[in-house]
Parts: sequence; structure tokens; C-alpha cells
Amino acid sequence: MAEAVRHDKTARQLRLLSDALDSGRLGPVRRLVNTLSPAEIGNLLESLPPGKREVVWGLVDPEDDGEVLVHVGEEVRESLLADMDPDEIVAAVEDLDIDDLADLVEDLPDTVIDEVLKSMDRENRERLEQVLSYDEDTAGRLMNPDVVTVRADTTVDVVLRYLRLRGELPEHTDHLYVVSRRHQYLGRIALQALLTHEANTPINQLVDGEQPAIDVSESSEEVARQFSDHDWISAPVVDDNNILLGRITIDDVVDIIREQAEHQALSAAGLDEDEDLFSPVRRAFRRRLIWLSVNLCTAFLAASVVGRFEGTIQKIVALAVLMPIVAGMGGNAGTQVFALMVRGLALGQIGRSNVPTLVWKEVRVALINGVTLGLLLGTIVWLWYRDIKLSAVIATALTINLCSAALAGVFVPVTLKRLGFDPALAGGVILTTVTDVMGFLSFLGLATLILLG
Amino acid sequence: MAEAVRHDKTARQLRLLSDALDSGRLGPVRRLVNTLSPAEIGNLLESLPPGKREVVWGLVDPEDDGEVLVHVGEEVRESLLADMDPDEIVAAVEDLDIDDLADLVEDLPDTVIDEVLKSMDRENRERLEQVLSYDEDTAGRLMNPDVVTVRADTTVDVVLRYLRLRGELPEHTDHLYVVSRRHQYLGRIALQALLTHEANTPINQLVDGEQPAIDVSESSEEVARQFSDHDWISAPVVDDNNILLGRITIDDVVDIIREQAEHQALSAAGLDEDEDLFSPVRRAFRRRLIWLSVNLCTAFLAASVVGRFEGTIQKIVALAVLMPIVAGMGGNAGTQVFALMVRGLALGQIGRSNVPTLVWKEVRVALINGVTLGLLLGTIVWLWYRDIKLSAVIATALTINLCSAALAGVFVPVTLKRLGFDPALAGGVILTTVTDVMGFLSFLGLATLILLG
Repeated sequence: MAEAVRHDKTARQLRLLSDALDSGRLGPVRRLVNTLSPAEIGNLLESLPPGKREVVWGLVDPEDDGEVLVHVGEEVRESLLADMDPDEIVAAVEDLDIDDLADLVEDLPDTVIDEVLKSMDRENRERLEQVLSYDEDTAGRLMNPDVVTVRADTTVDVVLRYLRLRGELPEHTDHLYVVSRRHQYLGRIALQALLTHEANTPINQLVDGEQPAIDVSESSEEVARQFSDHDWISAPVVDDNNILLGRITIDDVVDIIREQAEHQALSAAGLDEDEDLFSPVRRAFRRRLIWLSVNLCTAFLAASVVGRFEGTIQKIVALAVLMPIVAGMGGNAGTQVFALMVRGLALGQIGRSNVPTLVWKEVRVALINGVTLGLLLGTIVWLWYRDIKLSAVIATALTINLCSAALAGVFVPVTLKRLGFDPALAGGVILTTVTDVMGFLSFLGLATLILLG
Repeated sequence: MAEAVRHDKTARQLRLLSDALDSGRLGPVRRLVNTLSPAEIGNLLESLPPGKREVVWGLVDPEDDGEVLVHVGEEVRESLLADMDPDEIVAAVEDLDIDDLADLVEDLPDTVIDEVLKSMDRENRERLEQVLSYDEDTAGRLMNPDVVTVRADTTVDVVLRYLRLRGELPEHTDHLYVVSRRHQYLGRIALQALLTHEANTPINQLVDGEQPAIDVSESSEEVARQFSDHDWISAPVVDDNNILLGRITIDDVVDIIREQAEHQALSAAGLDEDEDLFSPVRRAFRRRLIWLSVNLCTAFLAASVVGRFEGTIQKIVALAVLMPIVAGMGGNAGTQVFALMVRGLALGQIGRSNVPTLVWKEVRVALINGVTLGLLLGTIVWLWYRDIKLSAVIATALTINLCSAALAGVFVPVTLKRLGFDPALAGGVILTTVTDVMGFLSFLGLATLILLG
């Protein structure tokens, strides 16, 4: 039920905007759009079909252009950039934070990148080059090099005077970092602590040395896990020599967590989280074709199993009617185990030590379910066809297939992960192939043995 | 590939712990466990089978017990609470923050709740009762009533003196709230601003009146959306009269976003995000049985369609071999559209205004895919059975079913949402029922007309 009211605000904005666009009154559209945050504008643009999307994009305050580009998926970003002059793009992105700019830079035309680099001062250019030197999906790419550092051998009073001189702090600064003469990370001081302690308190009394630093090469997934497990707002990033390089803030981590969730949901259907809801038909067609072709191959595999029993089906047509039930129920039961396993693997909860226990639990659940549903299914089939042998065959086949489904549900994701593949991506296809093949094989095989035997 | 290295740290801890448990040396286990954060301990407990789980739970520092209980799923929480005396539970939870305690309270035995309430001072008891008076999954339940407020008619200096007197601020305080005499919310002041401005600066010059307050009855999903769209770290919560009630901090929002993602992934398989990986067989059986029974009914619906064509299948057995391909491919194609729609609905990107455009796009993609894959499938079938009419029938049926899948992929989730249901939960079942029924109907129907006609 919660789903129903969720994001009703966004949907309302979309409707208002759409009505205004349809009526051709661009003034109200412009006013409406520019009350929104860049992320909200990005979301709205993603929800607009081509044509309307370009119109609204042209109405966005140029000051927000850069931030909006950061907040949309890759495909939509391409479509927005295609609408801009090089000069506009340079103006849009040159004021972005270094980490956001690093995010965008690969989607920009080369000439624009050169212009942007030229427009930056040397310090920022070096920072950008540094951030870009780290792999995508690592802490190095997430961090912002703009940090406020202090030395430990001073007092609250001195730091306060320094801060007043310095003026505004980088966004989401909740701690200052304490570094050595060689810029090695030593610990951090909460802004809170500076506010709640007397002016003459020595800084080294306030240093929190417990906050661990994140290694610059750490994966962004691991960064996200640490932030959410420790309730951090920000964390320092260091290199192998413990030299402070920058800091990561929770707002970027929230984006990662959202992207991970989208990735998992969409990759199970062979899609990418960057897919545009309104991507051009030709592009959507090509992407989906690959996925459907893979599925066509596995469907033939299952069909070839049925093909081996053509003789049996010819004699008992009821088998053709009932066989999709056995195969489909296996797929459903397997998907349940599979979903639990994918979550467990993503949380790091599954390892060599507990897989045997899990298999044993899932096989027992499958056996009890198989017997219960088998009795139910057998009874219905008996009422339909009045053939007790057929009932026994389908009940047994269902139980066998539910057990196969349980085994596949555990072992397919675990094996994929061990081989270095994303279990969520290919796992579903393999799983249903197993349950289709085993469903047809057990049902038609048993039927051949018992009913024609 | 990222998935492969993800959370390797947790998996390593699990292995170490498991080895230590197996060897029976509890000292190292205790030391290992107590280097972890409560969230990490919770994650480890969830990954341990019953038996080992109780042993490790007994080794957790009692000081962390409460926080660990907050961080585990409902089912695991029950199993941990079952291991504790009422006194232990009271000791564990009485020092929790009000919002965390409110989270737990419904899972506690009544006698324990009474004890906990008795152990609290009046102010905290009233706060807890206030938080509990709001609906689950609303801002009221997420907020912490512990906020620091100041008045606007004062100076930085006075506020600094007040803060030094007050001592430690509530966790994750990044702003102080400015309220009127009647405790109405007027705006906020960043801790940063207090640090970077001169002592004699009037507070009203520093007030940020732009930060909107969250309504106490707002849904937690909407709260999460606002936090992530605006990069907030904290936000004030007010009632209908704009009276300041508390504040919500980003760490709780991160938990919501994670839970939403898990909910979506698991509910598609008819499971609950609170499901324990090692839940007792009997409980797992009962839960899954309900889901599988629903699926059995829909499978019979599809089978009954096949049943109407028994005569046709008897004459051409190849139809029985090939029909699962047509049905299955429809399911796969429909699932792709469905996944995109569920994401779009969750982000509020889909409304009455753009559904027609989406349908038109998806139908065109389905047509092109249908023709392409139909030609491919028709060719393979011709090579297999050397029957050009059969090839034509399966190619046409596939195209019809891909178009039905596109329509169902768009309209099933949109309709469920409009009716107030969670599209991710029941949508998949309805979708595959449509694609199975349409797949069998189009293929066997066309075969009857053309091959037997």
C-alpha cells in the first residue's frame, strides 16, 4: 500500500508540467521547473518523452544545467548533451564539484573536455586529473579533494580564528581532519566539539582517532556498506602511505545505494540501470534482442527435452496440457530461493561455512512443499482426467522439480559469484532453464515409464 | 564484476568466525565480534545458522545488544529476543535513542515494555509515547525528538556560550533550529555558520529560512526521496501548526532506502524483506506455500487454454514441443518492460500524461523484436520439422505474444498502482499469466486454423 502513495508529489509535478506544456504556456513551465532541485529536474526530464524533454531542458536555469546532468542516467544525459552547444556545456559544468565533474567527464565531447580543463585553475585541474586517475567505482572517484585540515598542536581558539578567516566550509563538512606535517591523516575533530568546548582547549584533546580512513582503491560498494554499517556522514580517504587525499560524503553514498538497487532490479531482466524509459526504438530493440536471443537458446534446450517424448505425448495428450504446470511451479519455487540467496550474497552473509546448512534447509522446505502441493495437484488432475496413475506421476514429478529448484536456487548464484559473475544478471535465466528441463524431464520421463510401461 | 568483490570483508569475517566457532575457541570469537559495529554484528548473526547464532549472540558485549537488535530483520530479532531474560532485554534497550526504541517496541513482550517505560524518565517516556502515536512508515516514526533550538534575537556569541554550557549535541547535529516563542519552526543555522562568523554577528543574519520542514505525517518513502533529491543530512519535522517536533537524520534514511530495495527485490518472489535466511523449515514452508498456491491457480488457467486444443496437439505433436517457447519468450520480453515500468513508477516518472507514448514505444519495439525473432525461430523450426506452414504459425504467434507482453508490461503495473497495490508484488504473476495464456492461445489457435483448416 505504501507504494501507492509513494512519490505522489513527483507524479503531481509531472502532471502539472505536462498540462502546462500541452497548453503551450512556457512561462508557467519555466517557473515550475525552476522551483525544483537539480535532482528533481533530472527526474522530471527522465519522465518526459523526446520532444517535450528538449523543450523543458531549454527552460532550465543555465546555472542548474551542470547539476541536472549529474543527476540523470547515462542515456538521458547523452540526449540532453546533444541539445547543447560546446560553449553551453563548458559553462554548465565548469562550476561543478570535482567529484561530480569526474562523473560527467567521460560523456563529454573531447573538445569540450579540453575547454573545461583550460577554464579551470591549476589546482582544480590537478585535482580533477588526480580523481580521474582512479578506477571507476572506487573510493578515489567518489571523493572530493576539498577538505579542511588542521594541526594537532594548537587550540580551539586558533582553529576558530582560522575558520573565520577562511569563511565558508565545503558542503556537508561535519569534521575537520587533523594531519601531520607530511599531510598524513591522524584523526578528526567534530564541528560540534569546537562549539561545545572552551576556547583554550588544546585540539589534541578533541581529536577522534577512532574514525578509520577509507583506502582510495576501495570499491564503492564496500564504501557504501561501511557508511551504512557505521552511520557515517563523511569519511576521510587516504592512499597507501596514509596521506589524506579527500573525503567522501553521505549524499554520494546515497546515490550509490540507489544505483545498486536499480542495477539489481533491472539486471535480472537483462537491462541496464542507465536505460532511458523513452530510449529510441532502434536502440531499445537492439538491447532487448540480445537478451531475448539468449532466452531463445535456453527455450530450445527445454523444448528439445519435450521433443524426446513426442511418442509419449502422442499417446497421452493430457501430458502436453499438464507439463507447463510442473515446469512453471519449479520456476516459481526456485525463484524464491534464488532471491533470498542473491540478497544474502550481496550482504556478504553467505560463504562456504553456511551453504551446506542452507541447502539442507531449502531441500527440506522443497520436500514438504512438494508433497503438499503434489497431493493438491494430484487431486485436481484426478478430478480432471480420472486417472490415478497420472495423478501419481504429476505429484512425484512436482516434488522432484521443487527439489531440483531448491538446489539450483542455492548453487546457481553461489557458483556464479565464485566464478566472478554477477549472480543477479545471468542467474535467473540459468535457474529457469534448470527448472524447465527438470520439470519436463521428470514429468514426461516418469509418464513414459509408468503410464506406458 | 563489481558484485564479485563486493562485501568480501564481511564474507572474510564470516569465515574467520565460523572457523573459530568450529574449533570451539570462544575467546577469539568474542574478541572478533566485539571489534565490529552493531550493524556488522547484526549482519553476521543473520548469516549464522541457528545454534551458532545463539552462541555468538551470547558473546556480544551487552552494551551493544540494543543496537544489534535494531539492525536485524524482524524474524532474526524474534529468535534473538527468545534467548534473553526480560531483565537482559530491558537493560539492552533502555539506552537506545527514542526513534530506535520505537522501532523495536512492537516486537518486545508486554511485560518488558512496561519495565522499559518504568525505567525511563518522564520526558523520555512522553517522547516515546509521542513517536509511537504516529503511523509506521511515516516521518513521525523516523524522527528523533531530541533537537537543539535557539531564538533568532540573539548573537553568535550567546549561542556559543549556550552550547558550551550544554555540552555534547545529539548525534549528527549539523544545524540548530530557530523557533518562535511558541516553538514554531522558523529556519535553521548551520554549525558551520557559527564557526565561520564573528562572535557579535546577530543570529537572524545567519538563519537559513529556505530549508523546508517535513510534515510529521509524510510517508517514509517521500521523506527518503526528499533527502536524496536535496542532499540533506538532516531535516526538521513539524506538525500541522508548524510546531517543531523533532528531526530526521540521513542515517535513518539510508536504512529506509536499503529496506525499500530489499523489499522490491524479494516481494517479486512473494517474500518479505524480514525473512530470515535460516528461518525454521515449518515457517518457511507455510509462507512459500501461499505463494506457490497462487501460482498453481494461474498455471491451471494457462493449462486449461492448452486443454482446449487437445485435438490439435494429438494431430500435430510438434505443437506440444514448441508451445513453451512461444509462452516463455513472451514472459521474458514482458518482464523487461515490467522492470522498467516498476522503476519508473517507484521514481514517480510515470503518469497519465506519458503512458500513451510509452505504450506506443513498447509496442513498436515488440513488433520489430517479434518480426526479427519470429524469422529466426521460424527458420530453426523449418530446419527441425521442414514444415513451412508451422514456421509461419510460430513466427506469427511469437509476434502476437511479444505485443501482448508489451501491453501487459505497461498496463499491469500502472493499473495495480492506480488501484493502490504494490506493482512489484503481484505484477510478475499477472504478467506471466497473460503471456502464458496469450502464448498458448495464439500459437495453438493459429495452428488449428491454418494447419488443420
